[in-house]
Amino acid sequence: MLPVKIAATGVYLPEKIVTSAWLAETLHIDEQWILEKSGVKKRHWVTDETVALMGARALEKALQKTNIKFEELDAIICASGSYDYPVPSTACLIPAFLGKNQAGIPCWDIDATCLSFIVALDAISYLIAGGKYQYVAIISSEIASRTLNFNDKETTTLLGDAAVAVILSKTSAIEKSGILQSSVKTFSEGAMDTYVKGGGNAWHPRNPEAKDEDFTFQMNGRKLLKIASEKLLPFMEEIFEKAGFHWTELNMVIPHQASKLGLLMAQKQLKLSDNQFYKNLENYGNCIAASVPLALHEAIEVGKINRGDTICLLGTGAGFSIGANILVY
Amino acid sequence: MLPVKIAATGVYLPEKIVTSAWLAETLHIDEQWILEKSGVKKRHWVTDETVALMGARALEKALQKTNIKFEELDAIICASGSYDYPVPSTACLIPAFLGKNQAGIPCWDIDATCLSFIVALDAISYLIAGGKYQYVAIISSEIASRTLNFNDKETTTLLGDAAVAVILSKTSAIEKSGILQSSVKTFSEGAMDTYVKGGGNAWHPRNPEAKDEDFTFQMNGRKLLKIASEKLLPFMEEIFEKAGFHWTELNMVIPHQASKLGLLMAQKQLKLSDNQFYKNLENYGNCIAASVPLALHEAIEVGKINRGDTICLLGTGAGFSIGANILVY
Repeated sequence: MLPVKIAATGVYLPEKIVTSAWLAETLHIDEQWILEKSGVKKRHWVTDETVALMGARALEKALQKTNIKFEELDAIICASGSYDYPVPSTACLIPAFLGKNQAGIPCWDIDATCLSFIVALDAISYLIAGGKYQYVAIISSEIASRTLNFNDKETTTLLGDAAVAVILSKTSAIEKSGILQSSVKTFSEGAMDTYVKGGGNAWHPRNPEAKDEDFTFQMNGRKLLKIASEKLLPFMEEIFEKAGFHWTELNMVIPHQASKLGLLMAQKQLKLSDNQFYKNLENYGNCIAASVPLALHEAIEVGKINRGDTICLLGTGAGFSIGANILVY
Repeated sequence: MLPVKIAATGVYLPEKIVTSAWLAETLHIDEQWILEKSGVKKRHWVTDETVALMGARALEKALQKTNIKFEELDAIICASGSYDYPVPSTACLIPAFLGKNQAGIPCWDIDATCLSFIVALDAISYLIAGGKYQYVAIISSEIASRTLNFNDKETTTLLGDAAVAVILSKTSAIEKSGILQSSVKTFSEGAMDTYVKGGGNAWHPRNPEAKDEDFTFQMNGRKLLKIASEKLLPFMEEIFEKAGFHWTELNMVIPHQASKLGLLMAQKQLKLSDNQFYKNLENYGNCIAASVPLALHEAIEVGKINRGDTICLLGTGAGFSIGANILVY
C-alpha cells in the first residue's frame, strides 16, 4: 500500500445553472427525452470563467480545509481534458490567480481526458511514496459547455462544467489511509469514438475549411458503451485479484459519471447496491475529468465515505481507456 | 539514485527540410539576419504528418534498438506541447499507428510545453523505481510549423518539427545507470510570455472574433531571456547541492535548444566548455519538448555521451518553468 492520503477536496461550480427544462425549450426538444435519455436534470455552465480560474478557486477551498499553506505544496498538477490555451499548460496559470507568481512550485498538466484524475492519482502517488513530494494538489477543472454542438442533443444535454482540487499528502505512521492498487488500460480501437476534430495539428484552427461544428465534441455513445461493457469485468477482475479482495467488499465505488446508460451498465455488471455506487449525474452532468473527484468530494461531504473506508475510483475516458484507483480513504 | 535507465532512443524527422535561405526568400528578410539572430540554418517541417504518426515512427525506431517488444511496454507517455486533437490525448493514438489497437497499454499525456520531456522523465522514474512499471516509452512529438505567424520572423525562423521516443527501463543490479536528481520550478510571472492565445477555452476556436494570428505562437523573447538568466544559477545551485557535486564535473549538459541567445547565456553563466554543452540548434531549430531528447539522441549516436557518463538534461518552458534531470547514462 502506498502511504498516500486524500487530505482534502474543494470544489468550484459556475454560478450559472442550466436546467433541462431550459435546455428543452432552447433546443426545441422534449424535456422528458432529456431526463430519460441523459438522466441529467441540471448542470453548471460557465459564463466568463476560465479553466485555470475555476481550478484556482477549487484549490483555495481545498486548502482552507487543511493546515497546509499554498507555499507548502510540492506540485500543482492540472489533470483535465480541457484547457485555456494550447500554450502554456493550465497548471502554470493557477498560481497567478492566487497572487503567487514567484512560488516556484512545479506546475504541469496530465491529460487522459475523462480519466485524467484517476491517472494523476496513480502517477503522483508514486512520487509521494518515493519521497519526492509531501503535498500535491491535483486539480481537475473542466469547461465542456463551450465545445458543445447544439445540434447534437446527446452531448449537449449530458455535459457540464466544474472544477475540483484534491490535496494529497503523505500518510503519517498512525494513519491507515493509502493507495492499494491503481490501473489504467488503453484500447486504441475506441480512440476516435470520443473526439474533437479541430483545434490541434490534425485539423488546425487556422484551416480555412474548418467549420464551427469541427470544434465540438463528437461521441459515438453506442460504440463506447459496447467497448466499456466488454472491458469492465476483465479489468475489474485483474485489478481486484492484485488487491486481494472482491469489489463487492468495497464501502463505495465512485464511478465516472459518463452517462445514464454507462452508470446503469456498470452498476449492473458489478452487482453493486445503490449504497456502494455513487451517482450524481442528474445534478451536474458528465464533467469530464472533474466528475470522479466531484462525486468523491460530495460523497465525503454527505458522510457516505468515512476515514478508513475502502473505496474505488473507476472511470473510462476517450482513448478508449479504462482506469481505477483502489484506496483506503 | 533511482534505478532507471535510458535504454534506447529513436527519432523521426519530417522529410521536408526548410533552409534559412528558402525562409529568407519567402519571408523577404535577410538570410544573414536569420543565421545571426536565430542561429538556425535548417529545420524540418511536416508536410502531412501528424503528432501521433511521428511519435509512432520514433517509437518503432527506439524499440528496434532494444530487445523490448511493443507489447512489453508498461506505459506510453506522450510528453509534448503540441497535439493532434483537443480530445483524445495524443498517446492513445500511437498504438493505432502501429496496428496495436488491443494492446491495453496505458496511454496518456504530460504537458509542460518545452519542459514536457524533463517533467515526464522526473515523474515516470518514480513509477519505475517504485516497481509499478519496468519499461516505459516517453514520446515527445512536436509540430510547431503549423502554428507559426509568418509576420513574426523571430518565431518563424526559430521553430522546427521533430519526434523522439525514449525507452526507459528499470536498471538491473549490475548496471550503473540511474537518475540522481530531478527538479522543476514554475514562476507564473512568465506564464503569458510564451503563449498561443486561441484554441482553448480562453479564446475558443469557435469565437467569431478570432483571427488567424490568434492561433499562432507569441513569444516575448527578451523577457523570457531575462527571467531565465535570473533563475538559472539559483536553480542549478539548489539541485546540484542535493546531488552533492558541481555541474562543471558533468560529462555533458543537454540543454533545451531554446534560442541562440538562450544557449549563449546558459553556457556562459554555467561556465561550461563546448565539450560539456551540447548544441544542435542550427540543424533543427527549437523543437519544443522534442529538443532535449533529440539532442540527447544525437549526442549518444555520435559518441559524445557514453554509458556511465554523468549528464544533465536542462530546460526552460512556457509557464515560466525551469527544470533538469541529473542522471548517469
